[in-house]
Amino acid sequence: MMASGFAYAHRFANGLPAPAPRWTGFPKYNFIGGHNDREHVPAAELAAAAETVLRRDGADLALYNPHGPQGFRGIREFVVAKVKTRGITCTPDDVLITSGSGQGLDLVNRILLNRGDTVILEEFTYGGALTKLQRLGVNVIGAPLDDDGLRIDALGRILDDLQQKSVVPKFIYTIPTVQNPTGSILPVDRREALLALAKKHEVPIFEDECYADLTWNPAAPAAIYSIDSSQVIHIGSFSKTLSPALRLGYVVADWTVMSRLVGLKRELDSGTGALEQMVVAEYFSRSFEEHVGELTGVLKEKLDTMVDALEREFGTAVEKMWRPKGGIFLWIKLPDRIDVTKLVAPAANEGLVFNPGPEWSCNPAETKSHMRLCFALPSKETIREGIATLARVCWEQTGIPERSANIRRAPAAG
Amino acid sequence: MMASGFAYAHRFANGLPAPAPRWTGFPKYNFIGGHNDREHVPAAELAAAAETVLRRDGADLALYNPHGPQGFRGIREFVVAKVKTRGITCTPDDVLITSGSGQGLDLVNRILLNRGDTVILEEFTYGGALTKLQRLGVNVIGAPLDDDGLRIDALGRILDDLQQKSVVPKFIYTIPTVQNPTGSILPVDRREALLALAKKHEVPIFEDECYADLTWNPAAPAAIYSIDSSQVIHIGSFSKTLSPALRLGYVVADWTVMSRLVGLKRELDSGTGALEQMVVAEYFSRSFEEHVGELTGVLKEKLDTMVDALEREFGTAVEKMWRPKGGIFLWIKLPDRIDVTKLVAPAANEGLVFNPGPEWSCNPAETKSHMRLCFALPSKETIREGIATLARVCWEQTGIPERSANIRRAPAAG
Repeated sequence: MMASGFAYAHRFANGLPAPAPRWTGFPKYNFIGGHNDREHVPAAELAAAAETVLRRDGADLALYNPHGPQGFRGIREFVVAKVKTRGITCTPDDVLITSGSGQGLDLVNRILLNRGDTVILEEFTYGGALTKLQRLGVNVIGAPLDDDGLRIDALGRILDDLQQKSVVPKFIYTIPTVQNPTGSILPVDRREALLALAKKHEVPIFEDECYADLTWNPAAPAAIYSIDSSQVIHIGSFSKTLSPALRLGYVVADWTVMSRLVGLKRELDSGTGALEQMVVAEYFSRSFEEHVGELTGVLKEKLDTMVDALEREFGTAVEKMWRPKGGIFLWIKLPDRIDVTKLVAPAANEGLVFNPGPEWSCNPAETKSHMRLCFALPSKETIREGIATLARVCWEQTGIPERSANIRRAPAAG
Repeated sequence: MMASGFAYAHRFANGLPAPAPRWTGFPKYNFIGGHNDREHVPAAELAAAAETVLRRDGADLALYNPHGPQGFRGIREFVVAKVKTRGITCTPDDVLITSGSGQGLDLVNRILLNRGDTVILEEFTYGGALTKLQRLGVNVIGAPLDDDGLRIDALGRILDDLQQKSVVPKFIYTIPTVQNPTGSILPVDRREALLALAKKHEVPIFEDECYADLTWNPAAPAAIYSIDSSQVIHIGSFSKTLSPALRLGYVVADWTVMSRLVGLKRELDSGTGALEQMVVAEYFSRSFEEHVGELTGVLKEKLDTMVDALEREFGTAVEKMWRPKGGIFLWIKLPDRIDVTKLVAPAANEGLVFNPGPEWSCNPAETKSHMRLCFALPSKETIREGIATLARVCWEQTGIPERSANIRRAPAAG
């Protein structure tokens, strides 16, 4: 089946992504992607929820979008209750269920952006958002971060500078609560200052709260959307709190924006999978706090395991470690003379994958010594072995971290 | 929440679809869309399947694309078994699971089409396919149909004519088995002749078998893909056989094409919903033939009810009725002086919706007296009442069908 009898090569469209390789399974040390902890998928509870909803509402599956194009009523009602814990007061009419928050990003991008537009992102940010914006031909400006998130003074200077050039950015994309990849939480005074700047410059805020449910300390400041629903578009996800394989996210927006999002989604697909909406609504309506409470405990332990392993294996060679306040990833910086992109291939040979800094940055050339390490999927034992393997690969390629080859080769004991 | 405090109007992208209206529920007489029979969603069996798969494989939901980007192994294995009944021999590596067959259309279009390209469709064809091609800026040529589907002689002339103009069409899109909207089944000799023409002119065939499982007579000719897998791309769906709300379809293609489809899908989304793939694989692996056998029996009865009602209410005013050999829709032609697009609004006022012919045609201006009526969702009683209502609206607007106003107003008894 490898060779085709028909010469497709001259028929393919321009600008396609490269052909996919055949899939050969997951790497052993899998430190990328939004995967979750296998042992904490509540399979039996989801089965019970499926039983309940299918017996009650199964006939609804005979229709496309049985509760209209915004999604199942039950899950929109659950989103209303969930975002209330983020300070947001809204109704199911303000909620659109999407096929993952990735579709939320696509929809918001596409209702607002034309080729050549300018948007402001955080200097380190979600790689998927960067990829989507590049594909749309949009200019990306990275605003500086510190340990508490966006630096308002620096953002103000960027906005002033753009104003002088008569450039009106289409939005400011921010991940204020468990920032990706730095894990910071933006303090309440900065949220207010950010909104004030956005109002002054008449720029919408695009607030991504994909990880906001997974904080070590539950008392994060309210979402920016809660302060002004008219100038903020809010998205979130069930991928991180429950399962990335279910492909469920949501957008919260007022009707001016929502009517555009719904109009576009109706043209792009015929709805988001209904069984998953029904099951998640049923399960989370009863068990959200309990499940998320347990999951964040597990994630915090895995983070601690990874931090310990990095300190043991890399020592001071980790020049900076952004200790996340929640979530599933750790952002670190190695010495300047290490180019992590050159570690990708040798690490892959050892069955190890990580996100190189440039993929998660508005300024790739300045982020060659950074990397993002996800810790939700691997077991603690695999985390320890994997970080030891990473240190060995790094030492073999760069001589850093400086320890004897002997020590490098032996994975640390548990 | 109606008014926005922020002036988005100047910020929206160019060329967006119109804002969606607020959803107000389904019309009473719903003769559009691929909805299915509410009483024949196998809810209890799906619940049992969900229980089985979640207890067995639930931990897999912790990962994006747990069995790789082509979809869950179990459902790809089921597709392999299912398309074998259509004469196709393939492996799970030749199968891509998509978010509905609509995503299959999008992916195939996008790997092959550039703006300005030419494609050949059947003169009457799936409205969604036409909409997608219009959005891509592609030239559409409609090839004539008769009661058995594509007319090979006419298609040959179209291809010769294009060749003289040095235009190489990018594909021939055909729905050979339960054609949408005419319900015909292309005979085996025409399938072979179609492929011979495609080979002569070096044009791929894009074969859409969304409705092929729902035939009144199970012995439809084998899929065109079964004759030549290298020059044919084959798509199908679980929307019609099980549930449109589940958003599950598939593409079968050889690796030259598949690797491009997978590369593109990976860039566009993060996989298709996994729970739905798992549940459908589990249920259909045991019960496909039984379920589809029962469903087609129900659909045939509803079709007969609709045909009876049309004959009773419209008489000879239905100038032509394409009696479908399977599926969920009926394509009819009213007298030339009826423009069905002018019936849309008055019918909607009576709670009745249908697909006007121009939306399902490559030559809209020539199809103003045609309409498509879907019969899977409404009950037989609703079908009878709805067709009587349609006849009354039509008479009020056009004086056709010619019967007394009195009779027009009384819905036919069951």
